[in-house]
Amino acid sequence: MTLALSTDAQNLLFRDARTANTFTDEPVGDEQVRAIYDLVKYAPTAMNQQPLRIVLVRTPEARERLVGLMAPGNRAKTAAAPLVAILAADLDFHEELPRLFPHAAGAKDMFSADEAKRAQSARFNATLQVAYFILGVRAAGLAAGPMSGFDADGIDKEFFDGDHTVLAVVNIGKPGENAWRDRLPRLTYDEVVTTV
Amino acid sequence: MTLALSTDAQNLLFRDARTANTFTDEPVGDEQVRAIYDLVKYAPTAMNQQPLRIVLVRTPEARERLVGLMAPGNRAKTAAAPLVAILAADLDFHEELPRLFPHAAGAKDMFSADEAKRAQSARFNATLQVAYFILGVRAAGLAAGPMSGFDADGIDKEFFDGDHTVLAVVNIGKPGENAWRDRLPRLTYDEVVTTV
Repeated sequence: MTLALSTDAQNLLFRDARTANTFTDEPVGDEQVRAIYDLVKYAPTAMNQQPLRIVLVRTPEARERLVGLMAPGNRAKTAAAPLVAILAADLDFHEELPRLFPHAAGAKDMFSADEAKRAQSARFNATLQVAYFILGVRAAGLAAGPMSGFDADGIDKEFFDGDHTVLAVVNIGKPGENAWRDRLPRLTYDEVVTTV
Repeated sequence: MTLALSTDAQNLLFRDARTANTFTDEPVGDEQVRAIYDLVKYAPTAMNQQPLRIVLVRTPEARERLVGLMAPGNRAKTAAAPLVAILAADLDFHEELPRLFPHAAGAKDMFSADEAKRAQSARFNATLQVAYFILGVRAAGLAAGPMSGFDADGIDKEFFDGDHTVLAVVNIGKPGENAWRDRLPRLTYDEVVTTV
């Protein structure tokens, strides 16, 4: 079975791409992030919710605030990466639904009335978009270093107004020296897939 | 700014690909799902957790049970799709960590001791893998119809033993007639990305 996706693209996005822990000094410009977003924005979310919001941490002062909220093992690489992005879910995404999902008149009201359902949907769909974004970074010829180890409440408080919740922090750049360890094992098809 | 990913691959995965609501009768074989998994298994999860589990619903009896648990608007297309996959998070993923993340001796015990943290990590990382899987379906030249509208507790009870939680149900096949409506609007870069 051959995939429709070219081998080069398979390698760029999945097979050769690796999570990077070190980076070169080459900067990552806004135009690169624009190109990534302009690609991954098309990938699907439920009811076209698009709850992902991205904060690019560019000033030394903001970088320092963020590094202090990362788990100890993530601090040095977050301090050194050419670009760091905070990926968060907008818990008020439903405000945009009349424009984003116009044929379902009641969608916004349904989420207004149920805060728990809204938060769950924001998290789920923004997490899909985190994955799309990671592959988008690779599509731009860059390496991503996504991280889950941080003080989430602290980041929400420092960088948002209570209406967003952080899902991941991603270092972005060209991979540096010893950027990754050997690839870790993957579960086999038969361990993951069952048929009923 | 040009992406490293070829235009053909951009189109296949993001720009031309669409969520399908109808499919042709052409079957989707296990070898196609194997090829998809063999690609997307390489995409990253935190601590290499890989909590995604996939149930392929192939028997008419299992399909009927699933269709009855879908939201009304999702029933007809779930009944008609060539293949339906239930994508779930394995809440006991930590049992595999000594093998999947061998250099962190305490990882399994950390998750054993904290069920809430384990469930949150299972959901987050398996949701990343749902997104990788959707793009993998597209990489195989197929269309995906991911759905969030279903009775999640009912699916967990019917198809799992209490140690998994469903995240998405995905119809898979070649797109049929009127497979999708016009593309809905996307948020602009400036609505999504801010810089600090």
